[in-house]
Order: sequence, then C-alpha cells, then structure tokens
Amino acid sequence: MRVPLSGLPRRVSIYEVGPRDGLQNEKAVVPVDVKSEFVTRLAAAGLRTIETTSFVHPKWVPQLADAEDLLNVLPRSPDLRYPVLVPNEKGLQRALSNGVTEIAIFGSATESFARRNLNRTVDESIDMFAPVVERAHSEGLWVRAYISMVCGDPWEGDVPIEQVVSVASRLMELGCSQLSLGDTIGVGTPGHVTALIEALGAAGIGTERLAVHFHDTYGQALANTLAALRAGVTCVDSSAGGLGGCPYAESATGNLPTEDLVWMLHGLGIDTGVDLGRLVETSHWMARHLGRPSPSRVVQALSPKPE
Amino acid sequence: MRVPLSGLPRRVSIYEVGPRDGLQNEKAVVPVDVKSEFVTRLAAAGLRTIETTSFVHPKWVPQLADAEDLLNVLPRSPDLRYPVLVPNEKGLQRALSNGVTEIAIFGSATESFARRNLNRTVDESIDMFAPVVERAHSEGLWVRAYISMVCGDPWEGDVPIEQVVSVASRLMELGCSQLSLGDTIGVGTPGHVTALIEALGAAGIGTERLAVHFHDTYGQALANTLAALRAGVTCVDSSAGGLGGCPYAESATGNLPTEDLVWMLHGLGIDTGVDLGRLVETSHWMARHLGRPSPSRVVQALSPKPE
Repeated sequence: MRVPLSGLPRRVSIYEVGPRDGLQNEKAVVPVDVKSEFVTRLAAAGLRTIETTSFVHPKWVPQLADAEDLLNVLPRSPDLRYPVLVPNEKGLQRALSNGVTEIAIFGSATESFARRNLNRTVDESIDMFAPVVERAHSEGLWVRAYISMVCGDPWEGDVPIEQVVSVASRLMELGCSQLSLGDTIGVGTPGHVTALIEALGAAGIGTERLAVHFHDTYGQALANTLAALRAGVTCVDSSAGGLGGCPYAESATGNLPTEDLVWMLHGLGIDTGVDLGRLVETSHWMARHLGRPSPSRVVQALSPKPE
Repeated sequence: MRVPLSGLPRRVSIYEVGPRDGLQNEKAVVPVDVKSEFVTRLAAAGLRTIETTSFVHPKWVPQLADAEDLLNVLPRSPDLRYPVLVPNEKGLQRALSNGVTEIAIFGSATESFARRNLNRTVDESIDMFAPVVERAHSEGLWVRAYISMVCGDPWEGDVPIEQVVSVASRLMELGCSQLSLGDTIGVGTPGHVTALIEALGAAGIGTERLAVHFHDTYGQALANTLAALRAGVTCVDSSAGGLGGCPYAESATGNLPTEDLVWMLHGLGIDTGVDLGRLVETSHWMARHLGRPSPSRVVQALSPKPE
C-alpha cells in the first residue's frame, strides 16, 4: 500500500554503489563480463546513476584493476550516468582517457581514517584533491565528494559534528557539486543524522547538494535514511543486494540494500523509476555468483526459496 | 553519540517478546531450563516486561507446552512483568491457576488470518475473547490485545486502515488496556504506520494505549518504529536477537531485534534501562543454543567473531 508521509520529498534519486563500493572488498576477483552484466541488469531495472568502478591503483584494490575493460564494454545511454571513483591526478587522467564524465573523490572526516585510507593528513588529502577537482571542472566533469566517518570512526569514536562540517566545507569549496555523507561504520542514529544535515545547512551546504551513504552495521541505515529524507535530502546511496559486507563474515552487512530502500520509498509513494522485481532478480543472480546469500531483507523475502 | 530528535518521546517501554513470539516457531523444543535462563538473562539485562509463554493448547504450539513449568521456575521481582498469551477461557483458567497477572489475547484484522489462526470469523473471535477479558478484569488482571495483519495479509493483500480501526475498536471496547499493532508480514512502511496510528487516534484509541509490533521481513521494522515514535507511541515490541524468523530459512528474519531497537533509542538519547552488552551476550548465547546466527545486525556486529 502506498501511503505518503508528510514532510518527505516527492522524488528521490538513488545513487547505486554496488559495482564499486559493493564489490571492492570481495577477495575473489569477479570477472569483467559478470561486472558488465551486473551493471547492465541494474540499468535495466531502472537505476540511472551507477558508480561502476574506481581508478585507484590496482595494488590497493585488485578487484577494480579492470576499470578500463569494464568501462569499454558497458552499454551507454544519454540517461545513464556512470560515475567513477578517482583518488588523485593519475586516476583522473585515466578517467579522462576513458571518456568518463562524472567522478567522485573520497575524503575523510577524521585524521585516523585519512591516514589509513589515504596515507595523508586531512589537510594533505584536500591539497591532493584540489588540482583533481580543478582539472575535472576545466574538462567539464561533474564531481562528487564523499566524506567518510561522519558519525563515528573505529579509532576515534564519536566524530564531532563541527569537525565534519569543517572538512565538508573545505571539500565543497574546491567546487564539488555533491557531497555524500558516509556513516562508514554504521553507528549513527536518526537524531545525529538530522543534526549533521542541519549543521551543514547552517554552514551553507544545503540539502540540494547532499547525498547520504549509510551502512547497516547496526541496523540503522533505513531509519537514518528516513530521517535524512525528512531533513530534505533527496539523493540516497545504496547497494544492490546490500553488497559491501566484510567478506570474511557471511552474515556481516554492508551498505544499505537498494531493495530495502526502494521498498520503503515506493510504500511512501515516492517515485524511483526502479522495477523492484528485476532488481531483486539481479541481486539474487549476483548472490549466486558470489556464493553467499544477500543480506537484503527484501532480496531474502522475494528470492526463490531453497528446496 | 547521543543526539535527540525533536518530536520523539523521552522514554520508551520495550515489550520483549522473544521467549514467546520468538521461540514459538522453533521446531526443536527448547528445554525449560534454557528458556528459564533466557528469561532470567533478559531480566538481568534490564528488560522489565517479558512475554514468557502462551497457554495455547500444546497440540498447536508444542514448543510452549511447558508453560506451567517455566512460570514455576522464573525469578520474581516486583518490577518484572511476565505477560502470558491466553487464547481462550481455558487458557485463562490455566493462567489464573499459575498466578499470572498480565495476559494478552491475539486478534486478527483480517478474516483470512482469523480463520487460519483461530478457526473463527473475526466476529466469532471477538465473541470468544469477550468472556476472557471480562473474567480477567474481575480477577484484576492487566489485558493486552494484539491485532495482527494491520498493514497487509498474505491472502488478502493490503488491509484497509478503516478495517483495522474497526476491529481494534471492538477489541478495545472489551476493556483491554493496551493494543499492540502487529505488522505480522512486515510489509508496512512509515507513512502507512503513521496514517494507521492517526486513524486510531481519531477513533478514540490514543497513543498512550498503543504498542507497535513490527516484523523485519522487508527491512522496514526500525524505520516504521521511528515513524511510530514520532506519532507518539511509547511502547515497542521487539525480540531479543530478532528471534522469530521462519526456522526453515537460515537467513529469514522475524521480529524487530531488541538490540537494533535499543541501539537506535540510546543513540536518540531515549532511556530504556537496558544494558546492551548483556543483552547481546544473551542473544549470542541463545543463537549458539539454536545453532544459527542471530539476524540482529547489532548482535552480529558486537558478538565475538568466529576464528
């Protein structure tokens, strides 16, 4: 039953991260033809923005070493956007050489994660991103900035909201078009999310430039999404089938599953353009390929039951 | 980090249903000493209302055939409430003989489920409950009414809100103190939940008499809980470890896990009295007993990892 809830947006854009964020932690390399079929199926299910891969050095993420090969074989359409993660100027050069028109950079709200993920301080990472964003703009590219660890950090614990606002402001001052707020370890709750979005708004970063990126580690992702929608956000990151869990623990969960998000949005009467049945089929197919069940509740509920 | 969200209650009562609703579908009978330890641990973790068992005929729910034995060995304390499900007058007699002071009856919003679960029409089921509630009152008992299938029904599909309000009103007119709204198949979304609570309020059943009982079949349970809290509900049913899934599918999910609820409430700065660490230990212990992992995200995240 479709029953709207007052105060929510009428339309929400889903930014699908399964092929990049979902697959990057998979230890066994997924063949490029499987990745290509995955993206093609996601597009056929109605997803219009699909982050497909990353131009990070293959040494760090062997799973995405086939970025060029994948981009070469993907179906193209004027209404399909395939943003690609770009860590630095070298990555940007690869993106430009492959006709990429949307990129994402990946910043951190905390020093600990900047050090571990980027081998830099937060300041140094922003210095690294500045020429990337500048050149991307001069080439006419759309640029998204991720900011990770916006609610908590495994080494630092709670992350103060003002610290997130400070780093976010500097990323956006580089000229990024969109900021994706990543609760990378999934510890946030709806009041925290709301307060963060309000603080960003007070600092001049309005909800029209925000996306939210929740992980379901503590089961909070969809409740946090509801809070973000109520605060005015209209772009939500999610991962088909909830791909992105730690591969060593079968039951561990990763990103907000796109199916669970779509179930809620459609129930709220919010248009997404997604055909849920086709999306579930796609995640069920990918789960078989990966050899373990999807953590998405909707995929579990709607997939064919084992005999 | 504890960050309140405006418009939410300051305190929420958790109505723990794991020992009854969680265990009743388990095929392998759990020994009474394990059940007793389970309830004792839940109480030690700070839960104050624990639905322990049911006086349904053992033929229908063999798992709960030991109701008397369990009640005889449970620890007692003035601040601990152990409601027991009572299907009919015979069940009430057993409850009274065992010193039970809180009971719950279990109604259905739909004819299909009333027929299948109670072998009666909705009208006939209310006729069956009337003398139970009347006698319970004359004996000084507190009475909760469950109403199941409030959002959807496996046979009838969407359940109209006015139909739920009609059945709910008749149950409450019997004199029940509390009404627990059960989205038994987990299909509801936050707008539907909000509209239902508002419609009940308009019919004279205020939020002070309501509880919500969500199943996480489609991943909506916590988002729906957030919507219910915002609508003014202050009593939430949940099941330690998310017990209550279909036993034939390892990954299937059942009730809203108490741990995931507590994580959200504590993050929102809402007091529950629950020690989350002790609760997770309890669910981890029960999961080992049942031989499969808990579907609770929090239990998965905080339990010791397999070597």
